[in-house]
This record gives sequence, structure tokens and C-alpha cells, in this order.
Amino acid sequence: MRLIDTICAISTAQGMGAIAVIRLSGPDAIIITDKVFKSIKKEKKLNQQKANTLHYGTIVDGEKDIDEVIVALFKAPHSFTGEDTIEISCHGATYIQQQILQLLIKKGCRLAKPGEFTQRAFLNGKMDLSQAEAVADLIASKSEASRRVALQQMRGGFSNELTKLRERLLWFTSLIELELDFSEEDIEFANRKELFALVEELMSHLKRLIKSFSLGNVIKNGIPVAIVGHTNAGKSTLLNALLQEDKAIVSDIHGTTRDVIEDVINIEGISFRFIDTAGIRKTTDEIETIGINRTFSKISQATIVMLLIDAHDNDEKIHEAVSAVKNRMESEHQKMILVVNKTDLISDKELIDKFQSAKFNELTETDAIVPISAKQQINIEALTSELIKTINLSAIDNDEVIVTNARHYEALQQSLTSLERVEKGLYDMISGDFLAQDIRETLQYLGEITGQINTDEILGTIFKNFCIGK
Amino acid sequence: MRLIDTICAISTAQGMGAIAVIRLSGPDAIIITDKVFKSIKKEKKLNQQKANTLHYGTIVDGEKDIDEVIVALFKAPHSFTGEDTIEISCHGATYIQQQILQLLIKKGCRLAKPGEFTQRAFLNGKMDLSQAEAVADLIASKSEASRRVALQQMRGGFSNELTKLRERLLWFTSLIELELDFSEEDIEFANRKELFALVEELMSHLKRLIKSFSLGNVIKNGIPVAIVGHTNAGKSTLLNALLQEDKAIVSDIHGTTRDVIEDVINIEGISFRFIDTAGIRKTTDEIETIGINRTFSKISQATIVMLLIDAHDNDEKIHEAVSAVKNRMESEHQKMILVVNKTDLISDKELIDKFQSAKFNELTETDAIVPISAKQQINIEALTSELIKTINLSAIDNDEVIVTNARHYEALQQSLTSLERVEKGLYDMISGDFLAQDIRETLQYLGEITGQINTDEILGTIFKNFCIGK
Repeated sequence: MRLIDTICAISTAQGMGAIAVIRLSGPDAIIITDKVFKSIKKEKKLNQQKANTLHYGTIVDGEKDIDEVIVALFKAPHSFTGEDTIEISCHGATYIQQQILQLLIKKGCRLAKPGEFTQRAFLNGKMDLSQAEAVADLIASKSEASRRVALQQMRGGFSNELTKLRERLLWFTSLIELELDFSEEDIEFANRKELFALVEELMSHLKRLIKSFSLGNVIKNGIPVAIVGHTNAGKSTLLNALLQEDKAIVSDIHGTTRDVIEDVINIEGISFRFIDTAGIRKTTDEIETIGINRTFSKISQATIVMLLIDAHDNDEKIHEAVSAVKNRMESEHQKMILVVNKTDLISDKELIDKFQSAKFNELTETDAIVPISAKQQINIEALTSELIKTINLSAIDNDEVIVTNARHYEALQQSLTSLERVEKGLYDMISGDFLAQDIRETLQYLGEITGQINTDEILGTIFKNFCIGK
Repeated sequence: MRLIDTICAISTAQGMGAIAVIRLSGPDAIIITDKVFKSIKKEKKLNQQKANTLHYGTIVDGEKDIDEVIVALFKAPHSFTGEDTIEISCHGATYIQQQILQLLIKKGCRLAKPGEFTQRAFLNGKMDLSQAEAVADLIASKSEASRRVALQQMRGGFSNELTKLRERLLWFTSLIELELDFSEEDIEFANRKELFALVEELMSHLKRLIKSFSLGNVIKNGIPVAIVGHTNAGKSTLLNALLQEDKAIVSDIHGTTRDVIEDVINIEGISFRFIDTAGIRKTTDEIETIGINRTFSKISQATIVMLLIDAHDNDEKIHEAVSAVKNRMESEHQKMILVVNKTDLISDKELIDKFQSAKFNELTETDAIVPISAKQQINIEALTSELIKTINLSAIDNDEVIVTNARHYEALQQSLTSLERVEKGLYDMISGDFLAQDIRETLQYLGEITGQINTDEILGTIFKNFCIGK
């Protein structure tokens, strides 16, 4: 019995394509493939071939030919997983993919668990844990910013610096623990001044990383934007103008949009999750009421609330709507954009008179008023630029390290908390054993990020969210 | 300007996977990839690398890194298309796939049309037309039999023999046409006896191929089976027992199944397309009526009609149902299976008494009576074996050439018709010029199958049904 078995999985997207790729990794990957692969050049065994080469031939089950394929051969340690790896490109019929997969399992492979290829890459030292997590983020990336940050993290941009600081801290702990062995002699191996400087440096680094998470979270998950407004103000039309496609039902009948529809669009590399909502109005229609309740709950979840009003609405109605929405906005970080729709139907003078920002004392400085015509697609760009203003993109442009992972964020916060105890301990000149304990705790949390400290539980939680085949 | 440009497409299934493969083919495939690919080994250009090798590196757009990828390098003529070909394995995010594709287009590729890679393989002489068509069939194969027949056809099993016979016929035409040049001298270059033998041989070959199409069609498209019966007889439950999953709505309320649901299951390598239908009963419900009309139309389309009855039903009701369905069955080749459901609820003696085949003079010899319990999954295997009996699988087992393609079928029939004229002409000893004309026609039709004779129209029709990326 080998300790490590050979795993296999379909690595390309589910369903029918022109081709599909089945990946094998493990000590027997090449031997197992040799059992089912007949090269076009007779008697040629993959076993005797050079690494990083391609081979054309047939997948056979005994006498039965299954498919004509291309086999890619990678040899340990020069593969993604660090193990011998085979990638079989077969014809993309789901039936054929399944037949080959079943054949490989019959010949000794085990079906890979989600993320198991990447987990092996981690366990074989090809990448640390935060890099492994970035692989999943990269695969899930839906915008330019999320792709960029995930790629940077996968390349170790996040963990390299952290690992170095952790090693320096580890050195100090060793010195302090050495002191404990000589405690009766009252010797100080660890220079407290130097340790203090290191703690300060690390704390400032951690604080910067922790702070980056609010941007990181936005990059990874998109910015939630609620579109609210009276029925028939043109919410669906606006959403469609923004999406430039017809995902929401557009109709002239009041209260058509009953479900909360979510859609994501990319503006300058950032994802905005638009939430189209049922109109806010008094209604006796039961389903409609549910829709409206959802609207209000969406306001509190949104980072940006776009209140859409009709340019024709009278002042009272407008102010009532602004107040109603403002009352629902719970955080001071939420931004309201008052979108004045149907401006193509009133004169410029009327528009300016009616919507001078001075008239809206409900709005804060970060809020904005944007006149548009959703139907005529007028001034939509001004609206998108108002949306993008809410986030500071300079960090992405400067390739700064940005934390996008909630697990990292939590570990960083815990590291910081224990470091603050270390800092206070140094001020208070507490004894070495207490100091060492707090430092050890910091080391523990930092180690969890990169995986230098890992438990089956941490690994399990991380890799179960991967897709199979990666 | 080159006559042939370089094409690119995503070749793996749509959507997110662990990895995705983007394929380039054409004279500039390698040069274009070199523009956007930075190997892990600096300064290494794909241009200078050996064929059939794999290269790890980064896809870059100027200064911007897009993704870390593996590049597979194939060189003309040793590739699927016969041209220089590159396959880029990137991370499977749809966003990343699109970014790389757009980058390649920016650098000089053109987005491939459906089937264009295979079309190039055909145009470059890597395969004949019937083989190219088999590539699409292989990708679309959903059962063991369809995979097997498509693979055989892709390897030329169908066209090789046809091409040889065609060449022999071509030789005779040349001889006959030579005679025409010497017509005044009344010389016979082409031995009429030998020609006659060849025509006979070819005709018998064509007849066999034409006959195989009824099986080929079944293999490719599956056998349509209609499940009909009174409401509440358990049609949905039976379908579920057969599918072993819950695709149809099961309920105790009469008339629940309103839509005609199609599902395919594989039995011994053959696809059966099960058509679950609304119950046959008098109804005033409008939607229900549409369902029932559909039921009757499905009976005429089905190869097998399963009439499902309740074992409790009285004789009169049963015979009425059998007659009603039999009346709708238009072809003598249709088979009826009288499925007696809910047998777990009556005694064996009662069952035997009631359902002796002697009592059903409506049924023909190929029809059958099968007692089952859909709910308890009793005797379902007897039912499936009755289904599989309808087709003769020995042809598949003996790896005989089977025609699955309607275009080939039509061309074969036209070849046969013109050959019959040649045969008659030989009998009637018609003059060489008429004979040559009929043979030319045969050659034309045969050539269309393999693509030796092809028009843009034929090619257009064939390849437009491919998926993009193949």
C-alpha cells in the first residue's frame, strides 16, 4: 500500500465541448495511463518518454477502443501538484469523458475530491496555503480587479512578506525562550528595543493588510447596489441600460418587477451587483408586498443605493421618497445616488430648477444627483462614473497587496490583537514567559494564513469549496 | 496577405471549470502565441522549440500579466488540422478565457467559425468528409453504440471501402470515355463483363449500407418510446423507475403530467428516448386537452408504444385502451408493449387469468405483455429487455459499417439509383456515351460522401452544425 494514491478528475467545465481534459496525479499516474493508452507509435510507453511532451494515440479498454486522444506528460516534481501528472485531451462528449474516467478508476485511480490537486500542490510544497486559496479565487474571478488580485496572491505577493516578518518574530521567541532556560541568571538574549521595533513594524504591516480587506472584499464579491424607486420610474429600463441586455422584465404595467433580480456588471474592472427591486408604493397585492419588504432589506445590505425618480414627480413626492430611503440607510458609509430619470421629457431649465443640490438637504457630501434618460440611454456614463467613485482603485493600480479572503482577514485581526498584547507587555516589562506566550499566539495565527501551521479542519474547510478537477 | 489566416476558439465546454483550453490553428499560430506568452525560462521562444512539447509560462498583454498557463505546441503537418497548432490551458474562469481570446484576436487571430478546425483538417487532407462529420457525431455521442459507430466512421471504416470501389469505377469510366475517342473504330477498352461484375458488387455494397441506416439512425438519435395510458396508471412513476431519477412530476392527483417530457436512457448501449405523456381520458381542462392531443401525435412518431394499464382495471376498459392505441399506430413496424402496472396489489392467479396473451387478439406477434410494479420497481428488467429486443445489435457487435448520417444515406440512395441505370444500360447494351454519363453520376454521388466532390454549399451545411472550437 502506498501512502499517497493516484487521483483523477475531469478538469474542464461540465457538459459537452469540442474537447475535454481529464487529469491524473500521483505516483501511478503514468503507469495507469500506460495501461489504457496505445500510442500511435506502437510499443511506445509513456513511462520511457521525456517530461513535458505530447503523445497522440487511443484510449483502450482491453480490446475496445474508447477514443482518440492527446496525452500530456508531466513528471514530478515539475508539475502543478509536484507529482507525476497526466492530462488526457479527449473528444468532448460527456459520455466519452465519463467512460474514460470510469476506466481510469477501474485501473487504480481514485476520483479526486474538490480542490485535491491544489491541496497536493500545497502538501508537496509547491505553494503555501494562501497561494492555494488564490487558485480557487482565480478560477472564480469575474472581473479584471478580482483576476489581478488573485493572480498576485497566487504568486505569493501576499504571503512572502508575511513569512519573512514571521521568521524574524520566531527568532525573537527562540531567544526569549532561551532566556527562560537561564532565568536564574537574569540574562537578556533578546534585545527588547529591537523586538519592540519589530512588533511595531509588524503591527503597521498587519493594520495595512486588515484595512485593505474592505477593498479586497469589494473586489472579490462586487459592490452591492440597490435600485429603488416608485413603480414605473423606470428601474428595469435603467438596469437594462446598465446591463445593455434584457434580463429584467420591462413593462408599462405598474408593479411588474416582483422578484429581486441580481445582476453583475463590470465597470472599470470592478463588479457591481445590481439589485433591481419591486417599486416602493402602497399596495394590497400580497406578492407585491413581499417584493417591497425585500426592497427595504436590500437597502440596508447595499453599499450604494440608487433612488430612481421620475423627472415629472412633484417636489413633495420626491422629498418623501428621499427621506423614506435615507431612513432605511443604516450606515454612514452608504452612498445614495438620486437618479432623475426621463429627463428627455422635460426642459433643461425645469430640470435645473427642480434638482439643484441645494434643495436636497437630506443628501450628504458623498451622495450625488444624476439626471439621465434610461430609455434614451442619455448620461448613463455619468452614472457609472459616480458608481466607480465610491472605491479607491489606486491600491489596485499600484499592485499593492490586498486581502480578499475572510479567513486571512480573521487571522490577521487575531494576530494583531495578540501583537497588541506583546506591545503592552513590552511597555509593562512583563516576564519573558508571558511575552513568549503572546508571541507564540501571534506566530500561530500568522502561520495559519500561509499554512505553516495547519490542521485537517483548516485544510478541509478551504478545499471543500474548490471545484473538482483543480 | 496570406490566403489562410490563423483561427482561435475556446475548445472546452462553456462555463467555469478548473481549466479551459484555447486552441489556435494556422500559419501564424506559433508567432502570435510568442507575442503573448512569456515562458518561465526567459528568452525561450516557442518558435524554436520542438513539436509536441509543453511549456509553462504567463500570458501577457504588454506589461500586464493575464494568467499562468501551459502551452502545447504542435507543428504542421502533425496536428489535428494539419497546420501549426497551439493549445493554451488556462485557469478556467470565464473571464480569463475571454481575456485571452480577445488578446489573441487583437494580436492577429480570427475567431473560428463552428467546425472550422475540423474543416481545415478536411481541406488539408487529414481526413475525408465523412470522417470529419464523424468528429461531430463523436462529440455528440450519448451512448455506447453511437460512440462506437462514430469512432469507427472517424477512422475511415465507412469511406475506405467506398473510396476503393469508386476508384475502380472511375477506371472503367476512363476506359469507356477512351472508347468514345475511338468511336469510329468500334473498339471496346472496357470489358463489359468485368464492369458488370463491379456494378453488381458495388450495388450489393450500397444496398447493405443503405439498409444499415435504419439501425444507424436509431443508434444516432435513439429509439422513440411513447408511454401512454389512463391517468393515474403510474406513467410518471414508471418513467422514474426507468430513469431512476425524478425528472417527471409524480403526484396522486389525476392529470398531473401535462407536458410531454422527453428523457433519454441508455439500455445496453442504445439510447431510448422516453416520451411521458398526459393521460388519455376525456377532460374539459383546456391545458389537459392539449396534452392529450400531443399524446396521440406522439404515438405515431414512436417506434415502441408502451401502453400502461392498472392491473385492477376491468377487461372492458383494458381492451378499449388497447384498441384506441392500436388504432393510432400507423406503421406495422411499431411495437406495442402492454405494461400491466401495480401487480403488487393483486394476486398472481388473478394476474395470470386476466392477462393471458390469448385474451388479446389485438396484439401482433412482436407485441408483448409485461407485468410490473413501477412503484416497487418489480420486473422493470423484463421491460427493458423487451425494449432492447426491438433492435438487432449483432451488426454493432461485429463492427460492421453502419450509416448514421442522413446526408450519406441520401447520397447512397442516389448512387444506387444511377447504378441501377448503369446495370440496365449494360443489359440493354446502350452506347458508351450514355453509359459513361450514368457512371459519372454515380461517381458524383459517391464522391460527395467522402468529399472528393464537394461544393461550398455541402461544406457550409456540414460544418455549421459543429460546435465552435472543433
